[in-house]
Amino acid sequence: MTTDVLGWDVGGANIKVARIDPRTAGAPAAIEQPFALWRDFNRLSSELTALAGRIDRAADVAPPAAMAITMTAELADCFATKREGVAFVVDAFARAFPRSMLWVFGIDGRFHSADEARHHPHDVAAANWMATAMLVARAHADALLIDVGSTTTDIVPIAGGRVVAAGRTDPARLRSGELVYTGGLRTPVCAIIRSVPLARGRSRVAAEHFAIAGDAYRWLGRIGDSDYTCETPDGRGRSAAAAGARLARMVCADSETIDANDITAIAAHVAHTQSRQIAHAIRQVLRRRDTVAPRVAVVAGAGAFLARTAAEAAGLTVRDLGSELGVAAARAAPAAAVARLLAEMIVLRP
Amino acid sequence: MTTDVLGWDVGGANIKVARIDPRTAGAPAAIEQPFALWRDFNRLSSELTALAGRIDRAADVAPPAAMAITMTAELADCFATKREGVAFVVDAFARAFPRSMLWVFGIDGRFHSADEARHHPHDVAAANWMATAMLVARAHADALLIDVGSTTTDIVPIAGGRVVAAGRTDPARLRSGELVYTGGLRTPVCAIIRSVPLARGRSRVAAEHFAIAGDAYRWLGRIGDSDYTCETPDGRGRSAAAAGARLARMVCADSETIDANDITAIAAHVAHTQSRQIAHAIRQVLRRRDTVAPRVAVVAGAGAFLARTAAEAAGLTVRDLGSELGVAAARAAPAAAVARLLAEMIVLRP
Repeated sequence: MTTDVLGWDVGGANIKVARIDPRTAGAPAAIEQPFALWRDFNRLSSELTALAGRIDRAADVAPPAAMAITMTAELADCFATKREGVAFVVDAFARAFPRSMLWVFGIDGRFHSADEARHHPHDVAAANWMATAMLVARAHADALLIDVGSTTTDIVPIAGGRVVAAGRTDPARLRSGELVYTGGLRTPVCAIIRSVPLARGRSRVAAEHFAIAGDAYRWLGRIGDSDYTCETPDGRGRSAAAAGARLARMVCADSETIDANDITAIAAHVAHTQSRQIAHAIRQVLRRRDTVAPRVAVVAGAGAFLARTAAEAAGLTVRDLGSELGVAAARAAPAAAVARLLAEMIVLRP
Repeated sequence: MTTDVLGWDVGGANIKVARIDPRTAGAPAAIEQPFALWRDFNRLSSELTALAGRIDRAADVAPPAAMAITMTAELADCFATKREGVAFVVDAFARAFPRSMLWVFGIDGRFHSADEARHHPHDVAAANWMATAMLVARAHADALLIDVGSTTTDIVPIAGGRVVAAGRTDPARLRSGELVYTGGLRTPVCAIIRSVPLARGRSRVAAEHFAIAGDAYRWLGRIGDSDYTCETPDGRGRSAAAAGARLARMVCADSETIDANDITAIAAHVAHTQSRQIAHAIRQVLRRRDTVAPRVAVVAGAGAFLARTAAEAAGLTVRDLGSELGVAAARAAPAAAVARLLAEMIVLRP
């Protein structure tokens, strides 16, 4: 058995895993892997095993000592309820790593046993934001964590070195503005904008899964092919040209009937609107802290560039978690965070 | 060979077919069949054959004499361009009915040969609204056709017995307000609303394909199981309870953590917002006609109930195409319309 701790963030469309060796203070290694759980749920257990092998070569010969788990996958619609979803994910870990200790992170900021998680699923559902925020709180006693992932955005206030979120569950956080269900990659364009200003007027957009946020940022050059880590809506390529063709379809056009300027107008409008929506939620969260509102934003996630734009629009000074934790770990921040939090709590004997 | 004319409206998610016997003046027979063309495109030809057999038993022994075709399927993202899409659909018809005459309806209100359609795809792409409007114009010289389908809404002004649309192509119609890409069934809830008022405040919604418009109308009792003719987002049932569970997921809740009142609030907000969006486009179209704006709306489509609400909100008197054409034909209005328009233009000799 190694002394490594693996941290996991299992989402409905992505799995993030980070590895920490508690005996050293090095930056965590991290991997982000697209995984369409709602479709491929039967493969979850074997996918976990494969990812453990990729991030921890020692896992090939010895099982990792401890697993720190957080998840949002329980919301995927292959599960009738979150109870079913949490149990399924925990069971998949138990099958994948029968000899490892499993610890499931909760919205109370503590680790729970697998059995506790199964019996109290709402205590561990969607707690990943709390892990990242607790990690950030150590270096930034007063700050706003803004983690823009591929799919969702977490905006978490930290004051006096403590996480002071108004909501803990997903539904409560959607109301408080601390969870905005919008991200830098997977968000359908039709969920961001209703219409778009074009040279010849204003056009409504198609309510279809023709294009996603990642297409706008790919077209605008904000991300490259390799950053576009999710499936494309039409199964075609990740090039700027392919992204542009998808954006054209949003106004029921195609590459024969639209020019590059119009595609740029669509992409820019998506970027602008999404940034505005996140900035709006940032202000909602800041308003509640009134006179003690933090002035510093710590940005993280695959959409950190979007977090930065929104934070600046809301008048905040921006710090990048990537420069503190390493770029890979900051993209997979909740996985790195649960790994570190667990590593500090336990003593492993190799 | 029979003398029947079959009219087809091939969409990206639905195929509608209507049958007319030109020798009689009876109401057209009509079938609406969900068909996920973007996924099952290789089965299109055999699906056409099967549908022809269902609507026209004579087609089992003798091929139908003439096919009137209109389509919106060319926009589906299995096709790189509309040119590719139009050619694919025309070829599928040619394979399915090698002995029938194929006529493709155009945005100029005329029929084109299969070869013309292949060479001038933009002349026949998304012309189905024109067919319905030309049919309606005969009985209503001054009116607004409002056809709310499963996926899209057509709002077409008719004046002096003529179709006086400001836009002809999909992109132009999205700008003019004559095409609103919203419908009574397939439209993702996240493309209709951004947030929803709940008892405990206002909640943002998930930008996922968790629930569709049909779930809201199913929960509210506006449609029954059998009207919910498309696939469900989660592959589960079409009952009100199953629809409610999908709506709950829009605010990241589940059936254990939300009550029926909150689900009703979500569904009602979807219905209200969608009706308001359609009414907004109706007013945009009416404004252009200024002093000669029609005062009568003719409503059609699977979402005719929604067309009626929006038309009344815009101050129009409502006529139901279903009471003139038969309910099935009014749901499949473009298919019935192209069949009738073609039947009148040609003389068939059995």
